[in-house]
Amino acid sequence: MVKVENTKSIAMSDSIINLDHGDPTAYEEYWRKIGDRCTVTIRGCDLMSYFSDVNNLCWFLEPELAEAIKELHGAVGNAATEDRYIVVGTGSTQLCQAAVHALSLLAGGTEPVSVVAAAPYYSTYVEETTYVRSGMYKWEGDAWRFDKKGPFIELVTSPNNPDGTIRETVVNRPDDEEAKVIHDFAYYWPHYTPITHCQDHDIMLFTFSKITGHAGSRIGWALVKDKEVAKKMVEYIIVNSIGVSKESQVRSAKILKVLKETCTSETENFFEYGREMMKNRWERLREVVKESDFTLPKYPEGYCNFFGKTLESYPAFAWLGTKEETDLVNDLRRQKVMSRAGERCGSDKKHVRVSMLSREDVFNVFLERLANMKLIKSIDL
Amino acid sequence: MVKVENTKSIAMSDSIINLDHGDPTAYEEYWRKIGDRCTVTIRGCDLMSYFSDVNNLCWFLEPELAEAIKELHGAVGNAATEDRYIVVGTGSTQLCQAAVHALSLLAGGTEPVSVVAAAPYYSTYVEETTYVRSGMYKWEGDAWRFDKKGPFIELVTSPNNPDGTIRETVVNRPDDEEAKVIHDFAYYWPHYTPITHCQDHDIMLFTFSKITGHAGSRIGWALVKDKEVAKKMVEYIIVNSIGVSKESQVRSAKILKVLKETCTSETENFFEYGREMMKNRWERLREVVKESDFTLPKYPEGYCNFFGKTLESYPAFAWLGTKEETDLVNDLRRQKVMSRAGERCGSDKKHVRVSMLSREDVFNVFLERLANMKLIKSIDL
Repeated sequence: MVKVENTKSIAMSDSIINLDHGDPTAYEEYWRKIGDRCTVTIRGCDLMSYFSDVNNLCWFLEPELAEAIKELHGAVGNAATEDRYIVVGTGSTQLCQAAVHALSLLAGGTEPVSVVAAAPYYSTYVEETTYVRSGMYKWEGDAWRFDKKGPFIELVTSPNNPDGTIRETVVNRPDDEEAKVIHDFAYYWPHYTPITHCQDHDIMLFTFSKITGHAGSRIGWALVKDKEVAKKMVEYIIVNSIGVSKESQVRSAKILKVLKETCTSETENFFEYGREMMKNRWERLREVVKESDFTLPKYPEGYCNFFGKTLESYPAFAWLGTKEETDLVNDLRRQKVMSRAGERCGSDKKHVRVSMLSREDVFNVFLERLANMKLIKSIDL
Repeated sequence: MVKVENTKSIAMSDSIINLDHGDPTAYEEYWRKIGDRCTVTIRGCDLMSYFSDVNNLCWFLEPELAEAIKELHGAVGNAATEDRYIVVGTGSTQLCQAAVHALSLLAGGTEPVSVVAAAPYYSTYVEETTYVRSGMYKWEGDAWRFDKKGPFIELVTSPNNPDGTIRETVVNRPDDEEAKVIHDFAYYWPHYTPITHCQDHDIMLFTFSKITGHAGSRIGWALVKDKEVAKKMVEYIIVNSIGVSKESQVRSAKILKVLKETCTSETENFFEYGREMMKNRWERLREVVKESDFTLPKYPEGYCNFFGKTLESYPAFAWLGTKEETDLVNDLRRQKVMSRAGERCGSDKKHVRVSMLSREDVFNVFLERLANMKLIKSIDL
């Protein structure tokens, strides 16, 4: 079996590095430094029941997690939580499927509801909406080209995965009762992008993974305005997995609470730490890409209400392109760098998605190998 | 909102008691007594990656959980783990769906694969196989009446949920390549039933919830012989939720390890404790039911290899019936006892499923109310 080194820090001159997944291990160092404040201790007799709060519509949501979520959004100012239902999920992956399920069910028709996203889109949306071959909804691909009649769901990811752009809906059907939108705000946090305003949409998805880097916990949440939608999402999660790990919920509650408490600190602000790290990585990546055939998107600056100043964007993925007529995912694979093919994201062979959230040593190897590719090309000329 | 008391111990003369779900809180007391040995401590920087073991087919399975599972089955002797793949899931609920998905996919046809279970069956199977309206498989109901041609999957639960009987396949198609079976052994543990032999089937499902009572952790596992089936199950879980909570996995690993270590102890054997508790509850229930219009199944004794003696069965659910022509679920509801309707399990109005795993005070209230119903009926006469 090919040895894939992505879990420990070792000399990796020969190893394949996997930047296909967005495994956010970059932040481990911060949490190591924060020490015991985020440590949770769970006794054998704790958290045994299926139920967290029988009086809540989402009865498997731990009240302390609900509280931590509301407080964090309040402190960051990225999303409105008032008069909304919080639905917890096994990652936002489960929640996205729960939301598509709920909206399709409530559309009430006999034909499958169309699901679209503007290219380049998060490739996993394709898998999520096709793998069970549901008769309730149907993946219809690129929202830019969508012109079908009838009910549809547009998935809007902003900042976008894979290309980091700020997105709004692109299917323009104002006042169309059959037009539904799911906003995926996985990356709408101040280390990645300026928080220009407080989001206020019908269904907004967030994930613990991409905020703090705790992907292993599989915790996501949805902020949902409509009670019936929230109810159907909860029903989906009940049948899908009878709720969500309590251990992960209490741990994420604790970590989100510390995140909120330290987010105004001068020395311990996680978002400041994350932003500096991302800035450093992006600057080094842009340096390698400079004067080469590689391309990277440019992002406009924006005034960040959280930091109180104008800032750049440092997306969690690099949407790397090439000016050459080549299959970039294969070129990188030959250099033992695994990336996600642009074609999987509804784009072309000349683009790939590369995670910017790996451990530092993996990121350094990536830069070395990219610089090496550039060098080989320049010698070819 | 109606006040449902199922989460704390209070005077509940007026409360609705919910015995519809099998919330296994009965075992809390044991884990309280076992003390610190099962306590887990997780630091902020632990368990951050999506990956647990990149060289394992099921790369999101924590190695220490895999080890604990193998050791426990070895000690109890209820299932073979040699030469099998372990797939971890967010409860066996997710795994059952993963297995149905995998088998349907590998059947390779264009028509949906039939899914059946012998009545009375676990009502959740119906929901699990219908809610996404998959074109890959189709719930066909009672296996006793199944006579369709073509590929099918039989779900065999033994001891059975809801009625506690020992089950084997009932669709008799020996040597039929299109006949697939998923064995759900959630209750094949020595506190519920004699361990008469070591199970050795293609796909066997287990759940942490019903062994130790830790339902909130949402941990289940499948023991799978065929590599392709295991692979497709893993793929399902990746798209469904990108793996399984690491916190729950490390905690269940620790608890299963303690379970294994103490299972030969004279004073701390969990299975002994569980069996005594269940025996006591069943005897008290049978006492109330005696000389009434209520009915309960009788179970044959069996030689338990684990305890080394002949023992009775004490199922996790009581399959309560009545000799009268009445709707038993409604009769119980009027007495503020929530139970699962027999009709949902493919049976009739005269039967209900009642959880035997509630907290002690809830169980006592159930017995009181049942005795009261019996009394009212005798006065009616």
